[in-house]
Amino acid sequence: MTDDREVRRRPGGRSARVTAAVHTAVDELLVEEGPGGFTVADVARRAGVNPSSIHRRWGSLEAVILELEAAKLTEISPLPDTGTLRGDLLAYARTAAADIVRPGRLAFLQALIGARDLNTEQRSAPLLQRAAQLQSMLDRARDRGEPSLHYTAIVDCILAPVYLRYLLGMSIDEPDLELFLDRTLASTALPNTR
Amino acid sequence: MTDDREVRRRPGGRSARVTAAVHTAVDELLVEEGPGGFTVADVARRAGVNPSSIHRRWGSLEAVILELEAAKLTEISPLPDTGTLRGDLLAYARTAAADIVRPGRLAFLQALIGARDLNTEQRSAPLLQRAAQLQSMLDRARDRGEPSLHYTAIVDCILAPVYLRYLLGMSIDEPDLELFLDRTLASTALPNTR
Repeated sequence: MTDDREVRRRPGGRSARVTAAVHTAVDELLVEEGPGGFTVADVARRAGVNPSSIHRRWGSLEAVILELEAAKLTEISPLPDTGTLRGDLLAYARTAAADIVRPGRLAFLQALIGARDLNTEQRSAPLLQRAAQLQSMLDRARDRGEPSLHYTAIVDCILAPVYLRYLLGMSIDEPDLELFLDRTLASTALPNTR
Repeated sequence: MTDDREVRRRPGGRSARVTAAVHTAVDELLVEEGPGGFTVADVARRAGVNPSSIHRRWGSLEAVILELEAAKLTEISPLPDTGTLRGDLLAYARTAAADIVRPGRLAFLQALIGARDLNTEQRSAPLLQRAAQLQSMLDRARDRGEPSLHYTAIVDCILAPVYLRYLLGMSIDEPDLELFLDRTLASTALPNTR
């Protein structure tokens, strides 16, 4: 009657309960065991579902983590609306820098690396909603008469250095965040910006 | 007589042979099994050494991967010297974008994420030599009368977006690399640059 994707997206019902239980189990295990510290069998046991249900619906643990983290980003962490573009970007950058130490955030990165079977679309799909939220924040600024930016400027100039500096053990303080903002805002004036 | 670190760094001898055998084994397993697809026992078997030797000397598989990848970067992949700052940065960015799909490169990122016990210094130590190489490339440009840059501008504006865009399934083409270069070079003119 319906394919797997429709079942997965239908709100309520058994399918939604399984999803919620699996998400909760993964969320807890990420904190307790850390990224890479548990298996599908561990998740199934804690969620009270059959391991084969997880394999059938998600394919891999990485796919569950990507879905969970994308959902948390879009649902739990609303984007700032401070009234100025610079204010919004600074609030966003501060949150991103604070968020990177969370086990779920590192697991998200690890899942992206570990899931070698994911194609480009599968990688980007969980994040399309977040990208749309970022673009809305930037479009509000443009509508106020501030510079017009594409959300990839935030990915390149804020999110990317926040993640990589953390992984390389390089510190990030408030002047660094201001520097990231300057680069983001300067992107509008650069010849190759799209 | 000597502590472990001195033994490890002494060229030649049994210690150097063990290091070379372990590096080769990890290098091969990264290609064959992928990041996360093998254990210390697998490495020991292939290298013909005792697993306890690996644990004693490196502490973890992540530490071996970090050491190996840092050594490859500094020894195998020399930095460009094209005669202009922009030429050097473009050659560097192209290499980085091509290199990210290598299993060893992804394993390096995964090791940085997975090695939760590493402190900040342990994370950055394997990369200090590479950082010095990058700074030398930039200092050559400064000595020619071109703008003066700190190597963190390359980390932030080139390496970070190359890595994150790849992980998120976002494409990188030649105009993107030019954009990354523009941002790197524009860093000199920004108020917060250090």
